[in-house]
Amino acid sequence: MQTKILLPEAQMPTHWYNVVADMPTPPDPYLGPDGRPVPPEAMAAIFPMSLIEQEVSAERWVAIPEEVREALRLWRPSPLYRAHRLEAALNTPAKIYYKNEAVSPAGSHKPNTAVAQAWFNKQAGIKRLTTETGAGQWGCSLALAGQMFGLEVRVYMVKVSYEQKPYRRSLMQTWGAEVFPSPTEMTGAGRQILAAHADSPGSLGIAISEAVEEAAGREDTNYALGSVLNHVLLHQTIIGEEAKKQLALVGDYPDMVFAPCGGGSNFGGIAFPFFADKAAGKQVRLVAVEPSSCPTLTRGVYAYDWGDAVGLTPLMHMYTLGHDFMPPGIHAGGLRYHGDSALVSKLYNEGLIEAMAVPQLETFEAGVLFARSEGILPAPESCHAIAATVREAQECARTGEPKTLLFNLSGHGHFDMTSYDRYLSGELENFEYPEAAIKESLQHLPKVG
Amino acid sequence: MQTKILLPEAQMPTHWYNVVADMPTPPDPYLGPDGRPVPPEAMAAIFPMSLIEQEVSAERWVAIPEEVREALRLWRPSPLYRAHRLEAALNTPAKIYYKNEAVSPAGSHKPNTAVAQAWFNKQAGIKRLTTETGAGQWGCSLALAGQMFGLEVRVYMVKVSYEQKPYRRSLMQTWGAEVFPSPTEMTGAGRQILAAHADSPGSLGIAISEAVEEAAGREDTNYALGSVLNHVLLHQTIIGEEAKKQLALVGDYPDMVFAPCGGGSNFGGIAFPFFADKAAGKQVRLVAVEPSSCPTLTRGVYAYDWGDAVGLTPLMHMYTLGHDFMPPGIHAGGLRYHGDSALVSKLYNEGLIEAMAVPQLETFEAGVLFARSEGILPAPESCHAIAATVREAQECARTGEPKTLLFNLSGHGHFDMTSYDRYLSGELENFEYPEAAIKESLQHLPKVG
Repeated sequence: MQTKILLPEAQMPTHWYNVVADMPTPPDPYLGPDGRPVPPEAMAAIFPMSLIEQEVSAERWVAIPEEVREALRLWRPSPLYRAHRLEAALNTPAKIYYKNEAVSPAGSHKPNTAVAQAWFNKQAGIKRLTTETGAGQWGCSLALAGQMFGLEVRVYMVKVSYEQKPYRRSLMQTWGAEVFPSPTEMTGAGRQILAAHADSPGSLGIAISEAVEEAAGREDTNYALGSVLNHVLLHQTIIGEEAKKQLALVGDYPDMVFAPCGGGSNFGGIAFPFFADKAAGKQVRLVAVEPSSCPTLTRGVYAYDWGDAVGLTPLMHMYTLGHDFMPPGIHAGGLRYHGDSALVSKLYNEGLIEAMAVPQLETFEAGVLFARSEGILPAPESCHAIAATVREAQECARTGEPKTLLFNLSGHGHFDMTSYDRYLSGELENFEYPEAAIKESLQHLPKVG
Repeated sequence: MQTKILLPEAQMPTHWYNVVADMPTPPDPYLGPDGRPVPPEAMAAIFPMSLIEQEVSAERWVAIPEEVREALRLWRPSPLYRAHRLEAALNTPAKIYYKNEAVSPAGSHKPNTAVAQAWFNKQAGIKRLTTETGAGQWGCSLALAGQMFGLEVRVYMVKVSYEQKPYRRSLMQTWGAEVFPSPTEMTGAGRQILAAHADSPGSLGIAISEAVEEAAGREDTNYALGSVLNHVLLHQTIIGEEAKKQLALVGDYPDMVFAPCGGGSNFGGIAFPFFADKAAGKQVRLVAVEPSSCPTLTRGVYAYDWGDAVGLTPLMHMYTLGHDFMPPGIHAGGLRYHGDSALVSKLYNEGLIEAMAVPQLETFEAGVLFARSEGILPAPESCHAIAATVREAQECARTGEPKTLLFNLSGHGHFDMTSYDRYLSGELENFEYPEAAIKESLQHLPKVG
């Protein structure tokens, strides 16, 4: 009874898949504050042209450079698992597979795009990258990638996380990155915040402002983002491409694919390559799973909004809860985002993918069940996909239908043990659906044009 | 350029290799306080007969039960890596390979024996297992294994670690184990200590006493140990067996094999299967790497001594620094042991394997170099093997000799970030060779007979 379906390195995908090529209607352009499309060149202050081209490309296949493939081979192809023990624990006729992205050195899918972004920046002559990080998953991944290609990396880490999650900070430093608690005195944005609130705990919005400001102001420095943007989702499609090859090795194909969805790179990474088949007429359901407390797709509106909290980015057409919506402090930090990828949003708006929201306690219950049956301790973000899969597998147990289910195990939870601690000791609660807060923040959507 | 050499699940070894079959002289028996050999049955109060038989077996091959193999398939065969990037960083003509045992759910090689011990106990009708743990690597592994086979697991965790390493405690609890800070009020040994020292921080010796006392006193409960004993080393030989098959896939064979050595299961696990070839006339050097601050093989004496701190175990013929030697508080907790496996000790005494000691700062320097080149953050224990390999690869760079080097990456350091933190901030020091303390404790060696 085979547990792991391994793909030889020689069969690792050579191209990323660009879902834009198969979308019925093209993505809507990013807009400036004047309501006019932002020209690609306008992004050149912080991104290399190669990545900007990927951002606006409609080509179906984009070649993965050999140096990037060599870096990816440190952990890729990642194994596909058949979850025999989870199936037995659920007593379900469903077949459950999961793609294990926790095997990367940083412990999640994030390095897939970090190494690509680092390499393309290196090729463009860039010496330094700046970025923000909250819990630290993305900062770690970029620190690792920068180290691999000889780029300096500076991470603005939300101050409260910097203090509460010292291990992720140490990991970034071990990989050679500079890490500063944001807000800092090193940028105008940081100084402005500190002048008003000397004891500001920081926020992702502030950290983004600092990282972007520094990158925009220095010739040798660019900025890197860990999700949301088209080129980031593109780099993650290697996950779904590998999963398709691995399922083919055992003669299987999923009826449903589940992934956690915050900014969308995790979901896009595994789901888009299956969307290519769906666009060609194949039956497959693609389900984005979000927290009930930050229900962007299931309760937000489809509108133009800023990608950050303070209006520094272009306007993107996406599902949003409002750029100043402050999600409750759920433990799946990677899913605490007010908006969503424009590509994921468009597909959802056109009814081509599905979305569901799961409450926090159900996600941890599923995560503990998974850890106890499959051994691996999942990241709180990944627990959302597990919970959705468990729901469906239980439904199969009721109906007797032997569906084939696939989910993306986006990362391990080795640095999230305080969340498990709180769950196991009964301290965690489900947050109420934040209706009033969403209603309030949706009133602040920008007027376009 | 291939990075990972993968072995298909179907080629996972079916038998463990017992080095006793190839030793020139048989192992010396365990002795009681009267100096007479301990009969195997005497161990039946805390171990099942199947494991006791393995403990005294001289058979070359011991079959791995199918249920154990099924559990091992959750992470095995583990990948063998060619360390191309580390080689480049060292500018060495040496070829460096490492076996990656960090891929297990608990993050180290320890689950290899934990699942075997849990299964054999289950077969013997045992319902509960007790054990001790210091930093928590072993306790986590047994918690996972107990969960897999439906055994309750109670872990006595050294109190100071219980308080300082809450994440490992949470991990054990997530896998369903009970964890208590030792000394407890639940055992005679614990009560005795607490009566004398109400604020005792605990020690591995005390925790062993509590776990053994409980197991000896309950019919349905046995005790499990994570290293030192022959059957534990036996279960780890799957590491070296796989490594041999993987090297054969790329037509290679090591000149030297390095592994960290505390109790000996890590070293025995990778080195013993190569010893079989050495016994048959093949040239291969097997090197156990220990900390300069706890130099059991390189500075201890070969004598009969107790396996624990207070004299509850039989006497074992081994290299020892004296059972009451208190090693400095180095960060590689898994290597802070006064003695060593009797099998490893005998082979070393007969000049069939080698040993070397490495100071703490050199191990972290090597660990950071490894993390920055290969990506994976190594456990402090593993850093010892890396440091020894780096030394040899640098020697190859000087001589131009293209040696093939293999080391065991026994685990990841995700729960050891405080140690990296202290290293990176310059707070760590090399401990002096504790000559006076060793001299003192060697005077307390038991008189045999």
